[in-house]
Amino acid sequence: MKRILILGAGRSATSLIKYLLNINNTYGWEVVVADFDIQLAKSKVQGYDNAYALTFDIFNEKQRNEEISKADIVISMLPASLHIHAAEACLEHSKNLLTASYVSDEIKTLDNDAKAKGLIFLMECGLDPGIDHMSAMRVINKIRKSGNKLTTFETFTGGLLAPESEEHNPWKYKFTWNPRNVVLAGQGTVKFIQEGRYKYIPYHRLFRRTEIVEIPEYGYFEGYANRDSLKYLEVYGLEDIETLYRGTFRRPGYCRAWDLFVQLGATEDSYYLEGVDKMTHRQFINSFLSYNPHDSVELKLAHYLHLDIDSEEMFKLRWLGVFEDELIGIEKGTPAQILEHILKKKWTIDEHDKDMIVMWHKFEYLENGQPKKIHSHSVVKGENAEDTAMAKTVGLPLGIAAELILKGEIKAKGVQIPIIEEIYDPILNGLAEAGVTFIEQEISVE
Amino acid sequence: MKRILILGAGRSATSLIKYLLNINNTYGWEVVVADFDIQLAKSKVQGYDNAYALTFDIFNEKQRNEEISKADIVISMLPASLHIHAAEACLEHSKNLLTASYVSDEIKTLDNDAKAKGLIFLMECGLDPGIDHMSAMRVINKIRKSGNKLTTFETFTGGLLAPESEEHNPWKYKFTWNPRNVVLAGQGTVKFIQEGRYKYIPYHRLFRRTEIVEIPEYGYFEGYANRDSLKYLEVYGLEDIETLYRGTFRRPGYCRAWDLFVQLGATEDSYYLEGVDKMTHRQFINSFLSYNPHDSVELKLAHYLHLDIDSEEMFKLRWLGVFEDELIGIEKGTPAQILEHILKKKWTIDEHDKDMIVMWHKFEYLENGQPKKIHSHSVVKGENAEDTAMAKTVGLPLGIAAELILKGEIKAKGVQIPIIEEIYDPILNGLAEAGVTFIEQEISVE
Repeated sequence: MKRILILGAGRSATSLIKYLLNINNTYGWEVVVADFDIQLAKSKVQGYDNAYALTFDIFNEKQRNEEISKADIVISMLPASLHIHAAEACLEHSKNLLTASYVSDEIKTLDNDAKAKGLIFLMECGLDPGIDHMSAMRVINKIRKSGNKLTTFETFTGGLLAPESEEHNPWKYKFTWNPRNVVLAGQGTVKFIQEGRYKYIPYHRLFRRTEIVEIPEYGYFEGYANRDSLKYLEVYGLEDIETLYRGTFRRPGYCRAWDLFVQLGATEDSYYLEGVDKMTHRQFINSFLSYNPHDSVELKLAHYLHLDIDSEEMFKLRWLGVFEDELIGIEKGTPAQILEHILKKKWTIDEHDKDMIVMWHKFEYLENGQPKKIHSHSVVKGENAEDTAMAKTVGLPLGIAAELILKGEIKAKGVQIPIIEEIYDPILNGLAEAGVTFIEQEISVE
Repeated sequence: MKRILILGAGRSATSLIKYLLNINNTYGWEVVVADFDIQLAKSKVQGYDNAYALTFDIFNEKQRNEEISKADIVISMLPASLHIHAAEACLEHSKNLLTASYVSDEIKTLDNDAKAKGLIFLMECGLDPGIDHMSAMRVINKIRKSGNKLTTFETFTGGLLAPESEEHNPWKYKFTWNPRNVVLAGQGTVKFIQEGRYKYIPYHRLFRRTEIVEIPEYGYFEGYANRDSLKYLEVYGLEDIETLYRGTFRRPGYCRAWDLFVQLGATEDSYYLEGVDKMTHRQFINSFLSYNPHDSVELKLAHYLHLDIDSEEMFKLRWLGVFEDELIGIEKGTPAQILEHILKKKWTIDEHDKDMIVMWHKFEYLENGQPKKIHSHSVVKGENAEDTAMAKTVGLPLGIAAELILKGEIKAKGVQIPIIEEIYDPILNGLAEAGVTFIEQEISVE
């Protein structure tokens, strides 16, 4: 009886666990859900056969080796920095490993050893990174196989709210994933390549250099650039491409309002503010504005950032409560930590909220010298605050990959990411069966 | 015969060496100027008695110990990070040490040992830090001694051009000190305290939050905040002050134009640009602007940064040649390194240029409950590109301090900075004799 060991039972593992518990008895497989919090692990396996919960501590070396040695495949949903502990034990006991995290330099060094032992360590197999790689590489390889030359690749992903949950929310946004990453998004310099020219955008300009994209049936989205477009030149083998741009989707208007926090300095994470324990939302905002006892915080901010008092941006800030005389409620923090805490008061999804994942790619290529264009997109909606689109799109590719590896249908070895056909093709097919489909359209070029 | 050892004979040591060579024979002292470049050291002592040049390498442990053991006082003009090597040898051989650099954590740990051996390691004894400490503490202590309460302390220093060298230069600025520090100035978050409230300015807003100050006879200056105001709360013993602000002077209009480079991202130092060896000034600027083959770099920049094409700011940029199709002329570089290289083409002082140091303090205090105000300022002009105001104001306090220590008139021991009366009073008197005077004025408060 084959044994699947899942490390971590948090919200992001929900869909993954469900997927495996729906197929395990067909194949006669055992599923073990291991978490530091045994109640959480138990709640995920309750009522299923051949499914077990386990109290697990990745730092307990003995237990780590014992459990990993009993498994056939290990899926790590732990924080990215902890995968290495699982990976080293997997290597020692000759077990396959799956994660949804970026390949770290540490993990990369295990490639030869994993190959030598006939193992696959499949990384970046969630949503982003994960489904983005797979859905893009399918189109890129199709264009290449036809002997055509790819000139442009742009790709955007957004973790958003479903339209029915956007109402009465001027930002049309709540946190559906790690809030800290949302607050820190874009810090550092953005680099990309446009028409053969390298382009650089400093953080304080990023949210004012957006692109608008329309997706059939879902309307308009606004994209800002991710930091790391250039590294995909090599990963995707696109060294001679003229435009390469990776970005994040929000609904239109979000970026311009978010930029106000950036302009104030409220997203900085490099120092701690003084007197946070007694600070109100309003004082937090005021600490970035000039001193003037006769002007209101609202007026000072509007003047500083060139806003009309009745502008949409000011309304968005007011809606968040940032001008309220309400205690922040934490003892200490960097600006980014404080802002995150204030935002959570309005941006935490409630049980009725549905989230939505939107992914969109644009490919331009030359066919016999003629410019051609393909758009590809996928929209996935969540069911509720537990069964989110985010959990589904992160968990399903991992579940499907685990199934394919255990069935012997993925034969690649070593440290891999899902950019080769043998891996992405069956996973994308499995995703389509589970309702995660990509719509590819040829767009006429005038 | 007492022996003074000066480590480093660069431009910043010129006035220091001259000062000591003019007094050494009166006291019967020897002056040894030690530099890696023996020609440079020789050029500084030529024609003087009891003055010797020495080829010197601070990393040569044997030579370092030999030379320091023969000296009575060591003045290190080496880069700040190298002072520790001199300091440790000074401790071993029981010698006093003088520098114009900030006290590092490493140096601070030597305090007890220096005290135990009866030595003084006097740091921060140049211009800024140095004369700023001394001239400010003299007024602060006067206010305190009268039993009055200091409420505000603002201080600005600028290394600028003398008015006669400002003509036909729309920036009214050239590099008179380390160009790299000018390009990177203000990076990180600025913190200060205003009317009892902590205030924070992110880097990308810093050059638009300036203050205008008028100095009698010299006109208007524009000040932007330094990063580190808060650390002076403790250093100066000002924990209960309501406003504390340290800044840098430029001529009005400089900051608004400099901010264009900040906004573009052209002052960033965290990554290397691609293809710098073949890049022109114009392409450098264009790499921060959006792609559009039909618009000029000038128009894209003006539109992006909301400038009129005929604005003063655009003129300043054009004057610098940043829109020229001229090769930058370096092989690789960060944006900041490239910008520095381009700026040097216009901002390097020529032999006829005179520089000017401007220092200005504002003190507000309560006398029997009545608000009072004192302004204090000093302006020092250079003679030419060699005998600069910068070299004079950095070197004279060091020279005077060396004289006072050797004569036994400064008795403080341990790691010190010139904020105690015993140190600053005689140095300020010596500076006044050398022509570096502060004009203090009581300003009437309406």
